[in-house]
Amino acid sequence: MQKLLAAVAVSGASVRPDARATALVRGADGDVVGAIVRADGREAAVRARGGVVLATGGFINDERMLRLHAPELARCKYRVGAEGDDGSGIRLGLSAGAAPLNLGMGSISLPVTPPKAILKGLLVNGQGQRFVNEDAYFGRLGEHALLHQGGRCFWILDDATFVRPDVPRKVAAVGETIGELERELGMPDGALAATLELYNRHAARGEDPLFHKKRDYVVPLEQPPFGALDCTVEGSLYAAFTLGGLHTDPDGAALTPAGRPIPGLYAAGRTTACLAAPGYASGLSLGDGSFFGRRAGRAAAARAGR
Amino acid sequence: MQKLLAAVAVSGASVRPDARATALVRGADGDVVGAIVRADGREAAVRARGGVVLATGGFINDERMLRLHAPELARCKYRVGAEGDDGSGIRLGLSAGAAPLNLGMGSISLPVTPPKAILKGLLVNGQGQRFVNEDAYFGRLGEHALLHQGGRCFWILDDATFVRPDVPRKVAAVGETIGELERELGMPDGALAATLELYNRHAARGEDPLFHKKRDYVVPLEQPPFGALDCTVEGSLYAAFTLGGLHTDPDGAALTPAGRPIPGLYAAGRTTACLAAPGYASGLSLGDGSFFGRRAGRAAAARAGR
Repeated sequence: MQKLLAAVAVSGASVRPDARATALVRGADGDVVGAIVRADGREAAVRARGGVVLATGGFINDERMLRLHAPELARCKYRVGAEGDDGSGIRLGLSAGAAPLNLGMGSISLPVTPPKAILKGLLVNGQGQRFVNEDAYFGRLGEHALLHQGGRCFWILDDATFVRPDVPRKVAAVGETIGELERELGMPDGALAATLELYNRHAARGEDPLFHKKRDYVVPLEQPPFGALDCTVEGSLYAAFTLGGLHTDPDGAALTPAGRPIPGLYAAGRTTACLAAPGYASGLSLGDGSFFGRRAGRAAAARAGR
Repeated sequence: MQKLLAAVAVSGASVRPDARATALVRGADGDVVGAIVRADGREAAVRARGGVVLATGGFINDERMLRLHAPELARCKYRVGAEGDDGSGIRLGLSAGAAPLNLGMGSISLPVTPPKAILKGLLVNGQGQRFVNEDAYFGRLGEHALLHQGGRCFWILDDATFVRPDVPRKVAAVGETIGELERELGMPDGALAATLELYNRHAARGEDPLFHKKRDYVVPLEQPPFGALDCTVEGSLYAAFTLGGLHTDPDGAALTPAGRPIPGLYAAGRTTACLAAPGYASGLSLGDGSFFGRRAGRAAAARAGR
């Protein structure tokens, strides 16, 4: 950030903090030629010689947009974002006729580690079935758990593998037998036992043919008592932010629904649709911001020099 | 349809078949005041006194929009829709700054019945796990199979329950034992056997505690040989159409991203976001077209009489 701020300082750019664009201004031919900006309690029209680059983040903090476009994210307890992630730039772009892309998609994390030893446990759904390799990236765990299993999941451990995760997770149930654990969790009779029996049989040979978890974490779970950590979306920590936004080309130009650039309108970062939606991995938004932000700025500057 | 066409005939409406709206015309204040229409090889500007009602269907037949917004639907072999379901009305509305809603959603059907006797079989995923009550509505089966199980599914029957569905479905594998069937299907060793063992144990008492299939269809599957019908999205019949479109209010008025009606712009039917997205059931699009189409027409007509 220091390097980026230093580059801004020498660029000659005029920075106006605590200002908010409330509308885009379009010329008679439809080109975006400026914005209405509210700052210090007053509205001013700002002329854009090259173009307007919308870079106001995503919409995880706009309850209305979240419930309309990405209601599953609204179920997550921890919403990852700055105060400004209120969707304002996305709404401005859409209002100007820019096409949306992937508005329903988000990054959904279910952090369980550290410590890594906990990966010897099994992540199961409400029917006691496994559905993913437990050592997958925490973003994959969250997506699978919330989007495909309804957010009703438990992390099963036995006495030998039990370790408390550093992330706060409640104990959902404990049982002297798997049958008792099933009942405590409200699972169908024999369902979790069937999952464990199949898993243990292969785990005894260090194998996980269903989901191919890394051998280091594949051990039979057979030492009572057995326990389940709460990984339900209602009772535990899921972290989410939005990945959808305006559809842009590689120069950051906002595209019409027919796929043509809107002259003078650009966007970058989480105001645009993430390259990695679905399938987010930590840090990718930085690239969407810095790499494509720079391209968008350059494209707008080049247009100013026409 | 006869009643609807008769009502049109006495309404005084002028019908222009084989015409295509290529653009909306907006006044200086942003109101939609007409459309550019191409018919008989010529473009004409049509003035809308009350408003324009976009009702051109969904976008299942526009490959570009489908791949951008609903790529899972593009995997389905059977695309349900008329030639006109090319998304043109949705693109016109978005271009005018109307908000999108649920563009990623669709109706996805996995038809298996008739005959109903086939519901005694088990629908399993690539890990040999069940994931839904097999007697669910075929739209639920398709959604679960494609969106949550990656479209890799098989319908398992034994010799006693085997019946060929009226819908074309290939036999994916046959085995004298469940172990042989597993191997043929490339499933992990023991996975399908564990599923069947658990199912059969409860089925012997007519129960399905995992997914609560109707008792009529719950019988143990234990009579060799065993067979699997191909229910993969690549190898079998999935039927799909889009459910996303323009966000409207109950009068069919197209809404801005901030939720305000765009004066003079209305939409109905599959050009709008379906009330039942997700969770489509057969016939609901008729209501979206007729009920909300009528409301949109009335609202536009009332506006013409201002």
